[in-house]
This record gives sequence, C-alpha cells and structure tokens, in this order.
Amino acid sequence: MLAEIVAAGSEMLTPFRQDTNSLYLSAELNDLGVQVAFKTIVGDSLAHLTGAAKNALSRADIVIFSGGLGPTEDDLTREAVAATLGLELHRDNTIITALYKRFAARRIPMPPNNAKQADILDGATMLPNSQGSAPGQFLEVAYEGKRRIVILLPGPPKELKALFAEEVKPRLAAILPPAFLARRELRMALIPESTVDARTAPIYQRYAAVETTILATNGEIQLHFQCAKPTLAEAQARVDALAEEIEQEMQDDIFSSTGEALEGVVLLMLGLRHLSLATAESCTGGLLAERLTAIPGSSRYFLGGAVVYADALKTVFADVPAAVIEREGPVSEAVASALAAGIRARTGASIGIGITGIAGPGGGTGADAGKPLGLVYIGLADAAGVRVRELQLMGDRERIRWWATQHALEILRRHLL
Amino acid sequence: MLAEIVAAGSEMLTPFRQDTNSLYLSAELNDLGVQVAFKTIVGDSLAHLTGAAKNALSRADIVIFSGGLGPTEDDLTREAVAATLGLELHRDNTIITALYKRFAARRIPMPPNNAKQADILDGATMLPNSQGSAPGQFLEVAYEGKRRIVILLPGPPKELKALFAEEVKPRLAAILPPAFLARRELRMALIPESTVDARTAPIYQRYAAVETTILATNGEIQLHFQCAKPTLAEAQARVDALAEEIEQEMQDDIFSSTGEALEGVVLLMLGLRHLSLATAESCTGGLLAERLTAIPGSSRYFLGGAVVYADALKTVFADVPAAVIEREGPVSEAVASALAAGIRARTGASIGIGITGIAGPGGGTGADAGKPLGLVYIGLADAAGVRVRELQLMGDRERIRWWATQHALEILRRHLL
Repeated sequence: MLAEIVAAGSEMLTPFRQDTNSLYLSAELNDLGVQVAFKTIVGDSLAHLTGAAKNALSRADIVIFSGGLGPTEDDLTREAVAATLGLELHRDNTIITALYKRFAARRIPMPPNNAKQADILDGATMLPNSQGSAPGQFLEVAYEGKRRIVILLPGPPKELKALFAEEVKPRLAAILPPAFLARRELRMALIPESTVDARTAPIYQRYAAVETTILATNGEIQLHFQCAKPTLAEAQARVDALAEEIEQEMQDDIFSSTGEALEGVVLLMLGLRHLSLATAESCTGGLLAERLTAIPGSSRYFLGGAVVYADALKTVFADVPAAVIEREGPVSEAVASALAAGIRARTGASIGIGITGIAGPGGGTGADAGKPLGLVYIGLADAAGVRVRELQLMGDRERIRWWATQHALEILRRHLL
Repeated sequence: MLAEIVAAGSEMLTPFRQDTNSLYLSAELNDLGVQVAFKTIVGDSLAHLTGAAKNALSRADIVIFSGGLGPTEDDLTREAVAATLGLELHRDNTIITALYKRFAARRIPMPPNNAKQADILDGATMLPNSQGSAPGQFLEVAYEGKRRIVILLPGPPKELKALFAEEVKPRLAAILPPAFLARRELRMALIPESTVDARTAPIYQRYAAVETTILATNGEIQLHFQCAKPTLAEAQARVDALAEEIEQEMQDDIFSSTGEALEGVVLLMLGLRHLSLATAESCTGGLLAERLTAIPGSSRYFLGGAVVYADALKTVFADVPAAVIEREGPVSEAVASALAAGIRARTGASIGIGITGIAGPGGGTGADAGKPLGLVYIGLADAAGVRVRELQLMGDRERIRWWATQHALEILRRHLL
C-alpha cells in the first residue's frame, strides 16, 4: 500500500518555507502500515496541480492533498482533483450555514468567496474541521481501473493534524488491512556516525523486517527502528529484539532507549541520585541552562546559574579570581575549573559546571591571543573536587556553542553513571 | 523558465528527515530568474525514480536531481535518468583514476562498487565534486520535442552547494537569458499577520512585478520581496520603491529593513547609544541570554546575567528580597521589577532586564497558586527607574518561553528608539 502526499502552495516553492505537514502525515501513515512513496510540492496553478494529481493517482494507492482548500482564488485543490477525476463539485448547504455562523460569531459579514470552501466532490465524504473553516474531504474512487483513496486536507498544520487524527485515521484504519507498527529509538551522543554504523550494521542487517534509519545531527546519533506486522506483539517483539542486541553492543554509549533528550536523561539521573546542578557559562551564553530548563520539571534538579560573558561577571557571579583570568586568559583550564567550583559554592548545588571557550567568529584575543577558534574547557565540580576537559571543536559559532553544551551534558551523564 | 527539483532518497520519506537542499537551490535558481514550479521527493526505487524523471522532464525546462549518485545499490539516479532519456552510461576513466587516488590517500583499498560513481550519461558534462567523491552531471537534451536542461547533483548539502556554485550556476547563467533578481526583506515583531497584511496588501498588490511573501513565525512577521528584471538596477528600483512605501506605512513597527535578527538590531542599538545590558531570567531559563550571545560580537554590549530558576538564586544573584518573593510570589510584578533592578546593580550594566513567568506545563503553584499558565512579567531597569510589563501568553512551554524573550527584546528595542 503506497501513499503520495501532494502539498499545494506556491510559498513552499520559495527559498523561505518548507512543507512540514508531510513529516506528521508520514508517521501517521506508517502507523497504519502504509509507506509514503512520493511527495510532490506544487504551486497554486490549476494546470500544475491537475498534472500533479494525475501523476499521483496513477502511481499511489492513497493520495493525500494538503493545502489549497481556503477561500481565495489561489485555492485550487478541489477544482484540480475534480478535473482529474472527471467529477463535479456540489455546494454543501450545511457547510455554508456553518460558515455564516462562524463569521456571525465574529460579527463580520462573510465575504462571498468563502462559499467556495463548501464545494464538495461528488461522492466524497465531507470531513468537519474542528480548528478552522475549510472542511476536508475523503473519497474512494477508481482511477485508470485501480482503486484509489483520495483525501483533501487544509494546509495549516493545526487544522491538518486535528482533521487527520479525528476524521481520516479512523476511516483509513477501517478500510486498510490491519497493520501494527512498532517503533523504537536508541540515542547516542558524540560518537561518529561511521563508528555507530560499523558496529550496528552487522546486527540490524539481520533484521530484514525492521526498517532501520540512522540519523546524525548536532552531536547526536539516533537509531530509529520500525516494523509493521499483522499483530502489534509480533512487530514489537522484532523491534525489541533488535534494540536489545544493539544495546548489548553499544552499552553505556546509549543514553536513551526510549527517545528522551540528553538533557532530560541527565535531569532524570540527577533526580534519582538526589543531586542538584548549577551552571556558569561563558562562550555558550546560557544555551546549556536554556536546554535544561526547556525540560518540564527541570526546576527540581537544576537551580540555575550565571551567564558570565563579560570577564568581570566571572568574578561577580562565580568568584573566579581576577588575577587568574588575567594570568591564564578567560579561556583556560584554570578559569573553567574556578567557574565550576565557584558556581557550585555560590548556589549550594551538588554539582557545578563551568564552560569557557572561543566560539568565534575569530580566534582568541587579549589574554587569549593565539588560542584557536573552537577551543573549549568544561569544568565539573562536585564534593570530590573539580575535573576539566579540554576540547577542540570544529565549525562555526552556532555549531561550537551547541557541541560545547552537548559535551557538557555527556560529561555530566557519564559522571552520573 | 520553470524548474523542478527531484530529491532522491528513501530517508526523506520517513517521519525523521526532510529535503533541505531545495531551499538553497530555489534561492539560487531565483537568482537566475528561474522559478521552481515543482519539487518531488522519491525513494531509492528505479521504477519510482524513472517515473519521477519522466514527469519532471515532461513539465519543467530545468530538472535538477539531488542525491542517489553514491556507490551503493540504492544509488540509482544515473540509471533512472539514462532510462528516461534513452541514453547509455559510459564509465569515465579520469573519474576512476581520481577515485583510486582518493582511497589511496586514505590508505584504504577501493571497494569495487565505487566505480559506479564514474558512470556518465552520454553527452553529459562531468562536473567535478570538490567536496566528495560523486561527480555531478550537466546535460542539454531534447525530450518529447522540447529543450531540457538536466542536472545531477550529489545529496550531501556541502557537496551539492559547492557543485552548484562552482559548476552549475556559471553554466546556467551562460545559457539562460540574463535576469537579475533583487531581494529585500522587512521584519516586524509581535504584530498579527492579518494586521500586517491588511495594512500592506493595498501597497504590494500595486507592484505586480514584485513577488511578495509574508511569513509569520515565532512572533515575527517577515515580508520578502523579490523581483527579476533584465537589469539589476531595474529590479532593485522596483523592490526598493515597494519597501519604502511599506516602511512609510508601518514606521517603527519595522525593526529591520535588511534582514537582521531582532536580537542583532537590539545589540546594534545598544552599541550606538554606548549602553550595556544584563539579564536575570527565571521562566525563560537563559533563552534570552542565549539569543543575544548567538550574535557574533554581542560581548561588547551584553555583559551576561543570571538564570535564577530556583527562588533562592533570585536573591543570591539579583538581590530580590526573600520576603518579596514570599509575599508576592516568584511570578509577580514586584519580583520582575526587583530582578531587573538587581541584575543591573550587580553587573553595573546600563540596562537590566528581569523575566519571571509561568511557562508550564501547569499553572502557578505555592506562592503563585491560582496564577494562570502563560502569565509573564518583564521588567526593564535603567537609570530612570524600572517599568514592568504584564503579559498573558498562549501555547505550550516552548512557545511561552520563546514569546517571552521576543517581548523582552521588542520592549527593549522600543525603549531604545
């Protein structure tokens, strides 16, 4: 069972905006045992949309159109699908009434072009939109002698998601042969993708029924496993067996076997050990604190910290002696160590982390002259003392800052193991 | 002149990964006066790729394939294009030699499947890849009686971009009629998209030659203008005239007329006025500091600050009296005011900003019991005193945190005007 997603909208052909609905739709279709085989993005032109609809209907069993259902002249999906299938559109009075009510509730007269949204393909089921004005449509047809399912959804993600979940998924589940999809995700930090692949490929290649995807981004490797079987137990058993073998191979390199973020895992470990954390950040400028506090409930274990961008603040907030900064330079092992110990003492946290480094664009200046771009020191202080790790990171400012926080979290995680 | 981008790779049909090369390619093609009319994403199947190639060649003047040029069995773009055009592939000895050298330099024997990368379409120009092993290809052909330009590029973004810039763009520029693209971008913060559209549409609709795109994301409205003309001066004049009319209409609501980020504009304004800034963040947990320090050179005007997630740290780092926190609750006008004044005094900055709020998931607890999710107070302190703004933000934790920092930056920008 193959699906195609056709996203209509000229804005998605500019350099500024992308179709994102298809990621959500792919996950939902996979859940139903359906693979997405094609995605097409097409502008608001009747000829182009009709051509895209023909191609899609000739090659995919399920065709989902997103966008182009609004009230404007540019909204042409209904017309294109009708032309492709040789069907008429009829105006649905229930929808017209609902539209009038919607506008009346906002005390605005309804502009007449809105009535377009009530045009339904002959034979289609109208799918009410709980989040907006344009309804969706669901239609089973024969096209070139083949059975096709055609679905029209509005483009705004909130509307599309609600409509798919409430109206489309139950209908597809009723029609399609039962398929159950099991998923697992293992995550590792700061290991080269090629290393992970070399060690895990001999394992996952033995599991033909499980689809394995390796993603490497931002200092993290994700292994996604997905398996569709007629029963969930069967699918889950395959995926779990594979995940277990890979966990045996990669051991503590795996920080999450259920998809949690690295910062979430670290907070969980702090909680289990009844420990608290504080941070003093120079080059990362608050990014580590921001990542930790993005996790709901982080306040129980993360107290806060300081962004000590200016050298004077390293002394004001973390008691780093000005003489040390002057002698060793702000980017130095000594300053990272003093930041970690100082922020720990100031805040009363069990663990203090200090980060200092050169995020660029240029290399070190002043007391740091001669030190290279990407040089980062990460200090970790606890009751037993302070350790500092020296890193040489690659890339631009954004990448160096991100990787520095990624290393800090991974150092902390391994410390807590 | 219409283009289609065909991205080959099954991973881009999963819920986990998207084609991103097309954004870069769209911008570059627009530069040459070429509009992208279609994007197709297709998996690593010879039948599917061949079908996609046929569709693309029948409807677009320029077809760019990205991906599927590597050495594995799944890399089938060359074969699919050859089959579609009825051309043979020939193995290029220069490339074979280069591949052997590449592996020899890494002291690895070349696996034989790598030779595939040397297969060139009859009649195509081989485009050397400065960043990787798979070369690109460039071909002018007739397809169904129409002239077509076919371009094959490797999928990894670094390789694709280098190849396009070095090898493809000059070739396309030499073939295509000269077209010059002028672009402008105006940005506004925290104004509803519908308000911006209602006030600007009557203006931009009068400029038929300028393509206008409105993007609304994360509390920011961007107006993108783009105009292609036979001379750059002509294109620029249109775009500038439109931008100027819209600047007259929206006045100070526009924070950038050249595409800078809001945080960059604020830092620039601080610099022009010889002012410095420090922040004390509770619910935003360092996000404001992180956004400011993401801008290169921010250290000159942004000193740093404190992440005062735990209540005790509000006192430790910003001298907020514990009695005030207890009496008013941590999420209160009084605490926001004290945070702003306290961080200013502690750091010696000209301006202090304090943020406290309820980012969720739940509403206020303890001394904040009864206060709603999304309630945020932003304090701004300078020599003249402290002002506090109360906000009621909508959405989830991530959105509330982001919008709180967006409001803080916009409050600061309007203060500095």
